[in-house]
Amino acid sequence: MAFTMKKKLDATYDEALVRVTEALKAEGFGVLTQIDVQATLKEKLGVAFRRYKILGACNPPLAHKALSATLEVGAMLPCNVVVYEDDDGKAVVQAIDPMKTIAAAEPGLAQIAETVTQKLGRVLEQLR
Amino acid sequence: MAFTMKKKLDATYDEALVRVTEALKAEGFGVLTQIDVQATLKEKLGVAFRRYKILGACNPPLAHKALSATLEVGAMLPCNVVVYEDDDGKAVVQAIDPMKTIAAAEPGLAQIAETVTQKLGRVLEQLR
Repeated sequence: MAFTMKKKLDATYDEALVRVTEALKAEGFGVLTQIDVQATLKEKLGVAFRRYKILGACNPPLAHKALSATLEVGAMLPCNVVVYEDDDGKAVVQAIDPMKTIAAAEPGLAQIAETVTQKLGRVLEQLR
Repeated sequence: MAFTMKKKLDATYDEALVRVTEALKAEGFGVLTQIDVQATLKEKLGVAFRRYKILGACNPPLAHKALSATLEVGAMLPCNVVVYEDDDGKAVVQAIDPMKTIAAAEPGLAQIAETVTQKLGRVLEQLR
């Protein structure tokens, strides 16, 4: 899928959630929101779905800088990081690429977006 | 800002939050996440910021349809709807336009994205 970065881990879904959260923290991102897609679809529609979470990651100093430059960038925050269980039981991690979303929507934010893309890229790179 | 739809309301910030939530509900969207940007920036950085919330809106049947077609669309869910207080005390509402984000990233989802864009467009249109 365009606009995103992706990596398959040699880890279970539960292991991946811990590792992703730690790796994000090391790059200055807290997880502000969590959507358990499996639980939500079960609750709202009664349907079964694979294990799947959407984490809303935020680096507060960079978010503040972006919002101060362009008030409306909030429509593209926080940075989503998806963790799901693949068919073989291993986890896949997928992060939005702010250079392809935020910077594309607002060229004036390209420098901040580039910094965030690099950080999220390092998160994915170091995950195993 | 590109990729978004926006409207200024004749309402205070608090009134707008109630109206937006109701208008989203009427189009089948629940609010799955809420980020109080003002409170978050105060807590994390100790800085003052205007009243500003990011609502994560989700229409479960459409989200399920999109995720079933393209597993990785979760990186662009939920649909963000921002409510903030403008300098004159009135509220501004801004919603992501899925035709410019989801459909642009994944043309196979254009039909679902179009439906969501129409729904969010109606939400904004009817807000006062």
